[in-house]
This record gives sequence, structure tokens and C-alpha cells, in this order.
Amino acid sequence: MQITSEALERVIEELARLPGTGRKSAQRIAIHLLKQSDERVITLADALIQLKKSVIRCSTCGTITDSDPCSICSNQKRNSGVICVVEEFQDVYIIEKTNEFRGRYHVLGGTISPLDNIGPDDVRIKELLERIAGDDEQIREVILALNPDAEGEATSYYINKLLQNYEVNVTRIAYGIPMGTELEYIDEATLSRAFASRTPF
Amino acid sequence: MQITSEALERVIEELARLPGTGRKSAQRIAIHLLKQSDERVITLADALIQLKKSVIRCSTCGTITDSDPCSICSNQKRNSGVICVVEEFQDVYIIEKTNEFRGRYHVLGGTISPLDNIGPDDVRIKELLERIAGDDEQIREVILALNPDAEGEATSYYINKLLQNYEVNVTRIAYGIPMGTELEYIDEATLSRAFASRTPF
Repeated sequence: MQITSEALERVIEELARLPGTGRKSAQRIAIHLLKQSDERVITLADALIQLKKSVIRCSTCGTITDSDPCSICSNQKRNSGVICVVEEFQDVYIIEKTNEFRGRYHVLGGTISPLDNIGPDDVRIKELLERIAGDDEQIREVILALNPDAEGEATSYYINKLLQNYEVNVTRIAYGIPMGTELEYIDEATLSRAFASRTPF
Repeated sequence: MQITSEALERVIEELARLPGTGRKSAQRIAIHLLKQSDERVITLADALIQLKKSVIRCSTCGTITDSDPCSICSNQKRNSGVICVVEEFQDVYIIEKTNEFRGRYHVLGGTISPLDNIGPDDVRIKELLERIAGDDEQIREVILALNPDAEGEATSYYINKLLQNYEVNVTRIAYGIPMGTELEYIDEATLSRAFASRTPF
């Protein structure tokens, strides 16, 4: 095979490294870009460069932001007294989409996982305790919204135990039957949880 | 929903414009890039910029190239006497992968399609005739390798008719049963063609 454009080949190689993009889709994207205007492609390249240049972590909640503190932590209309604890900054995105939660976040940056050598000091638990102990935010409720897997559960229990020493309510988001499904498609663990967590009608 | 990083949002938007990339995969790619080193992301951005800066068309065959003439047309080891006519430069890629063809190409840049207002002068047929009439390449055979759809067929017939006035053999790639399939999965049009184009055993 003879390659006529090294520049095209390089773009295909780079795109093929991205998650979910095989060589075939990389090729399709590269050819698409080749047919786009210079401006469009430069806009994309520039957005990528800016991504690495301007994205930092919020020193309060730990989510990604272009300016510190992030727009959520600096938003006076949001309730600083309620903090939602999540594993990763992506979870902030996911929860924000629901428009349900109007408090602030705390991004742990992972979960406690002894098998992976990740202990309590490797995630931002100390920072959470400092926020709760501090006077700035007057935190009254901590909502745990970690993933319902073994590590998420263990981390939730660990945090809950620590928070017993503080004057805050600790709650967790409800785990149960997702809306719009049928019972026959629900796994047993979820169904058991839904029974255990049943609420008054 | 409150966005904490405009830079991330911009990358997601730009990536979501690419073919085969919805907002979800754009988000996954953007988050992946955020976790990569600065160098990796800048390499990708730079490859994109170079793509638009350096890719041109070969003045001989019309395929994309970084330098004119392209590496195929300037390769002395390739047979300049045999030209394979294809619709788009991607087809050059596809045929080169087989390592079967050692001649040169001619990229039409489309097919004749009256319904789309694309006439014979809108694709590079005149350039093909000039190459054949010229003395540089001493072209003896023209292999038509257009797509087997209505436009590809019509364009093949049209070119074949024009080439009757020149001293060249006109051939076309074989259309028939693809290798490795079973007859029961083959559509009738292909099977009919395979019968009509049967070859001595």
C-alpha cells in the first residue's frame, strides 16, 4: 500500500487512539475534516488546545472549571448548606442535567479501593471534612451519590461513619427500580434494594 | 444545568459535529482528552491543522497528496501504462490496501448524475482523455473501478464510449459474488451479474 498523504495518515492515526474510534471511523472522520473549511478544522484544533490550557480543578469542590472557584461554588443562588458527594466530575454533569439539585458538589476523584491500592487519603475525603468543619458554607446536609458498586458502597459507609462526628444530616440518593422499565427486566439485587428501601405511599 | 467549564463544553460541541459521533461519545472523548498529557492533545490538534495546511490534489491523478505529483504518480516502479479510474480519492486508499494494483490512478471526483445536476464536465473526464492522448504516460489500458450503482454504471458506459476513439484497452473490475460468503445471502442483482460475467474454469 502506498500512502499519498502523510498528513492524512497522521490524523487517522491520532483519531484512532481516541476511545470508541477504530481505524475505520478515524478514516471516515479524517476524510470528513478534509472536506470541511479551514475555519471549521482550526476551530476544532483550537478547542482542543484550549481544553488543556484552561481547564483546572475547583479548589472548593474539585470539579473541573475554567476559573476557580467554579461557577457552581460561586453561584450565590445555590444552596451552600447542602453538598452532594460524587465520585468523578462527570457525575456533576450528569446530576446537573436533571435540574433537580440546587446545592453544591464535592468530587472525591475516585473511591476507596484496597485492591487497587486506593486508600481514604487518595480521594478527597479530608477536604470534605474540612468543608464541613469550616464556617464558610454552613453545611447541614451531605447527600452521598456514589455508584452502587462494591467500592461506591464501601466508600459511602466509610464517609457516613466519619460524618457521625459532625453536625450534619447524611443522606443518600435512592437506589431502586428505574422509571419506565418493567419489573421482569430488573435484576434481583435492584429489586431486593427496592423492597428494603420502600417508602410510604 | 450549570456548566462549570466552557472549554470542555466547546470541545464536546465541536466533537459532536463529527460524523458518527453523538453527544455522548463526544463527551466520552472530551473527558478522555482531558485526562491525557498536554503533548498528546497538542499532537492531535497539530495533526488537524497540518491536514488542512498540507493536503493538496495531485495535478496528474487528482488524488490527495502532500506534494505534487503524488507518491504514486512519481513512483518510477509503478506502471504508468495502466490507469485505474475511481470515483473518489478514498477508493485509491481502498485499492492500495489490496497490494494488487501496481499502475496509476485517475480520480474523477464524482460520477455523472443528471438528477444532481452533475454532467460530464463536472468530473475529471477531460483530464483523463488528456492523459491518454499525451505521450508522457503511454497509457495502454484503462481499468474502470467505479461503484456498481446507477451513476457508476452510467459513468463507466460514458467513459468507455469516449475511449473507443483512443488506442487503449478498456477493462472493468469484476463484479460478482464476494469471497467468503454463501450463495443464499447474495442479492439477485449480484447473482445475475455473476452468471452473466462467468469465466472459464
